[in-house]
Amino acid sequence: MTKQEEVILLDFWPSMYGMRVRIALAEKGVSYEYREQNLRNKSQLLLEMSPIHKKIPVLIHNGKPICESSIIVEYIEEEWKDKAPLFPSDAYGKARARFWVDFIDKKVYANGRKLYTEKGEEHEAARKEFIDSLKVMEGELGDQPYFGGESFGYVDVCLIPFYSWCHSYETYGELKIDQECPKLIAWGKRCVQNKESVSNVLPESLKVLGFVQQMRKRLGFDE
Amino acid sequence: MTKQEEVILLDFWPSMYGMRVRIALAEKGVSYEYREQNLRNKSQLLLEMSPIHKKIPVLIHNGKPICESSIIVEYIEEEWKDKAPLFPSDAYGKARARFWVDFIDKKVYANGRKLYTEKGEEHEAARKEFIDSLKVMEGELGDQPYFGGESFGYVDVCLIPFYSWCHSYETYGELKIDQECPKLIAWGKRCVQNKESVSNVLPESLKVLGFVQQMRKRLGFDE
Repeated sequence: MTKQEEVILLDFWPSMYGMRVRIALAEKGVSYEYREQNLRNKSQLLLEMSPIHKKIPVLIHNGKPICESSIIVEYIEEEWKDKAPLFPSDAYGKARARFWVDFIDKKVYANGRKLYTEKGEEHEAARKEFIDSLKVMEGELGDQPYFGGESFGYVDVCLIPFYSWCHSYETYGELKIDQECPKLIAWGKRCVQNKESVSNVLPESLKVLGFVQQMRKRLGFDE
Repeated sequence: MTKQEEVILLDFWPSMYGMRVRIALAEKGVSYEYREQNLRNKSQLLLEMSPIHKKIPVLIHNGKPICESSIIVEYIEEEWKDKAPLFPSDAYGKARARFWVDFIDKKVYANGRKLYTEKGEEHEAARKEFIDSLKVMEGELGDQPYFGGESFGYVDVCLIPFYSWCHSYETYGELKIDQECPKLIAWGKRCVQNKESVSNVLPESLKVLGFVQQMRKRLGFDE
């Protein structure tokens, strides 16, 4: 960074949405102050900076809050253009990348969450949709190293946090992701091996599983 | 348009999402071929061009499909930059506009739909959330002529289709939007009066109501 910047991130460590932002900031080499939030007792700052949804992550750049993880990653791309471009330069490529991130939010993450928060029919329906959505993403990846083609891009940033949740998805979704989607798991390993922005941000999958176990206890699930 | 372009829109006339795209194309002065779709008997072309969600609208630009209305409007902005900019030039302004369009999709349109497709508790909860979301939008508008400030922008394009649905929302939501949100209704009138892109695209609200009545009959609602 050449100019004097104040960058603060309000976040919560197991959040896949928060990880996106941390990875994007790392890709761009932006220094920032990380402020872990207690989501069961929200800080005055979080409520002021995210008054509509009251959710993390929030990026506060020179006093101005930006909310919603996919929008924050686009903001980071536009504010710190010079290093590690996350989007292709053509409008069609950008539209495709945005389409896939929207799909990840609506299908992969939304159904993934239901694997550990729902029971019965809702759980089964989510499990089916979750596996289908991963297969769609695997098809989109094809034989490319990254969703961004030869380089790690917007779709990669937005999906890779999923990799640290695989253990939890497998446990509560009763599935083996590497059997269903071997190329997707190979992509996850590739990102962790090749990108420090990813390996430095993603928590251990067992640590995430421990968090999910605690959450389920609070929600009243028998383990 | 200076270059030779083929622009086709797959759409369905009462769709608020489709209207967004038609308004954006009109703002940019882009000529296109409109192809009305039968959503109860989807065309081979629609299934090919929107293989994931199988939904309108789809913009086909020189053979390439772009899906999801808010993403299509961003694409139109980027492809036809020269005329009628829909976004502010700074990254923070863009992020704010994207935030509000995401809010419109998740809160205004999602709850608005439930006013005529749900009953009982679900209807009542959606009705409350719908009114709250409109009040939030009214607060965001404040005393500006448009959400884009002095000029009609991305948030205006994405919310204004709502105005042609007001009659339907009022009928099935048992509410008076002009009493709840007078500034929002004044904004709707202003858009219709000042913007030909809007007045040429928005259908009569009674025609939309007729469509909703037919849909409810098919869904088995007693009128």
